[in-house]
Amino acid sequence: MSDRFSFRLIARDGAARLGEITTPHGRITTPAFMPVGTQAAMKAVLWRDVRESGAEIVLANTYHLMLRPGAERIAALGGLHAFSGWTGPILTDSGGFQVMSLAPLRSVDEKAVTFRSHIDGATVVLTPERAVEIQRLLGSDIAMQLDECIALPASPEDIARAMRLSLTWAERCKAVFDGSRGGALFGIVQGGDIDRLRIDSARALVGIGFHGYAIGGLAVGEPQAVMLRVIGEVVPHLPEDRPRYLMGVGTPDDLLESVARGIDMFDCVMPTRNGRHGMAFTRFGPINLRNARHGDDPRPLDEQSRCPAARDFSRAYLHHLVRANETLGAMLLSMVNLYYYQDLMRGARAAVAERRFGDFCAETRAGWAGGDLPPL
Amino acid sequence: MSDRFSFRLIARDGAARLGEITTPHGRITTPAFMPVGTQAAMKAVLWRDVRESGAEIVLANTYHLMLRPGAERIAALGGLHAFSGWTGPILTDSGGFQVMSLAPLRSVDEKAVTFRSHIDGATVVLTPERAVEIQRLLGSDIAMQLDECIALPASPEDIARAMRLSLTWAERCKAVFDGSRGGALFGIVQGGDIDRLRIDSARALVGIGFHGYAIGGLAVGEPQAVMLRVIGEVVPHLPEDRPRYLMGVGTPDDLLESVARGIDMFDCVMPTRNGRHGMAFTRFGPINLRNARHGDDPRPLDEQSRCPAARDFSRAYLHHLVRANETLGAMLLSMVNLYYYQDLMRGARAAVAERRFGDFCAETRAGWAGGDLPPL
Repeated sequence: MSDRFSFRLIARDGAARLGEITTPHGRITTPAFMPVGTQAAMKAVLWRDVRESGAEIVLANTYHLMLRPGAERIAALGGLHAFSGWTGPILTDSGGFQVMSLAPLRSVDEKAVTFRSHIDGATVVLTPERAVEIQRLLGSDIAMQLDECIALPASPEDIARAMRLSLTWAERCKAVFDGSRGGALFGIVQGGDIDRLRIDSARALVGIGFHGYAIGGLAVGEPQAVMLRVIGEVVPHLPEDRPRYLMGVGTPDDLLESVARGIDMFDCVMPTRNGRHGMAFTRFGPINLRNARHGDDPRPLDEQSRCPAARDFSRAYLHHLVRANETLGAMLLSMVNLYYYQDLMRGARAAVAERRFGDFCAETRAGWAGGDLPPL
Repeated sequence: MSDRFSFRLIARDGAARLGEITTPHGRITTPAFMPVGTQAAMKAVLWRDVRESGAEIVLANTYHLMLRPGAERIAALGGLHAFSGWTGPILTDSGGFQVMSLAPLRSVDEKAVTFRSHIDGATVVLTPERAVEIQRLLGSDIAMQLDECIALPASPEDIARAMRLSLTWAERCKAVFDGSRGGALFGIVQGGDIDRLRIDSARALVGIGFHGYAIGGLAVGEPQAVMLRVIGEVVPHLPEDRPRYLMGVGTPDDLLESVARGIDMFDCVMPTRNGRHGMAFTRFGPINLRNARHGDDPRPLDEQSRCPAARDFSRAYLHHLVRANETLGAMLLSMVNLYYYQDLMRGARAAVAERRFGDFCAETRAGWAGGDLPPL
């Protein structure tokens, strides 16, 4: 397993694409959903079950890991793969997004983002160069440029300033990225909800040249229609022969809509976070196991699921675990959701290969619209 | 799987015994450790991993389950086995111990124990007859009589009163127990730390006649020496052809000392609770993964362990998970500890069969005394 990063487009159905990414730690078929293992751990799910869900790549968060246990420490322990025990491909973000959302007392200038650690209060300076170095120390297969991601709504001036700063940082990241170990560096399109800025950002990044292109700064509070419009504007300016990654998205419907617009990669905490809160994603749509209607229901969540947790336990039991705040409830529902997201992507890939992606989306949405099983 | 309860003594080494219990849901080799799945769930461990650890029987707590989701509800869902998905033997306690330790506003008289639910404040009356009925509704393989378990130290008068009340309740439980489905009912020896009362209790229970005999009211604050002395006094008054169960015990050393005195069954929350708090039981003794010494240690907890969690992850990673409060840390360390307890019992059984139980205890204690691996 020491192949260099590459991307191969296999099939297309409209704008939707079937592809394959090769990385030093294995291959990923796209469209791909990357579960989020923030602190080098999937919350409440064993790696064995992440793997069996069908996930081929996971995401780890640079911000958390640089603060604890530290990038140099992870490097000394052989990198994220050896450290965590996840042996497949790993994408790391740059830390920028979490600095903005989690760190107290942050400030941004041309040179760097400076912030206080939310763990011990230490002052940390994150430059584009350091963000790349940290990701090299972590041993990630796909590293992300440092960017400034601002919350929407924001003024056009602020959006433009952050977009231009992100472009400057993209150049600096590219300049110091060492591709000798076969990994990849992705640029991140910014520009908020302003199409013109988004297109400028995409073109400039393509001019710099990256292994893949992410669209950042979406799913930060704007309506889905705005997000999809921006994707539709940006994608035509991205090269066909590079993967496209929509960061931090999203609901199952967001995924289908985005695949339809040519997106190849996604990450989101939703399957595990919602699982911890008693919510299951299923082919019948989302199901809240906390609801009293499940309390006496001996039926499994979905007897046709590939996921043992969706098949082998009654809704009554899952309801009990959620109500009783048993960790096993979070474990089982997180597993159910990881399988569901992977199965959705698997279905999307098969549909693109057979040029029936539109039908697949319609059938999937009909299942959601049909709602949950009727009461017994 | 519809065999009636029975017990067969296979071998003996001093007072230590190797045996086999048959239940409607399968066989249990003894000495056996029963992990505790209080609310019909093992905390932070999938049933699959409980099974793979070697556990042949688990314990569920009547007190919790009668309050939520309710015994009648579980019965309507097919009993605890169908409800939880644990298909092996299940022992249920009577609820008495937890009423004393968890319920607010409890009161005991000859007729019943009355208490407020800690969940919704409802007043609940638990009679010996109802305790047996609840356990029948749960479908347990081994039911326990209702007893009154008082904390030590206590006055001789209080200890004697509780012991005699427990005997009365033992008779009432026996009178209503329906053995037609092949399950068992165990009596519980009480009498605090007063040998004379303990012996009276044991003799009276044997006079009533039960499928097995538990020793309750120990490991409630008294020194280990007192507990072992009481066990030594009680065991000679229990029949050879029935299993002996020491309730709520204990540390690995407690288990060895008690097996040496003729105990066949144990239950304790220690492996899972301590696992959730960052503590691993190993052949090197207990290891606190929160300790900074593990932060850079690439070695597994124990490369010779049968447990994947003890073999496949570095101490540095486990340390990180514990420090970062990741659920995966609780999951992996609980698994490590369940395996360790099962392996300890497996070793004890093999040693009794080969009449080298004394050597086994000495070797095991030497491993603990040797302490953890030296720092790298």
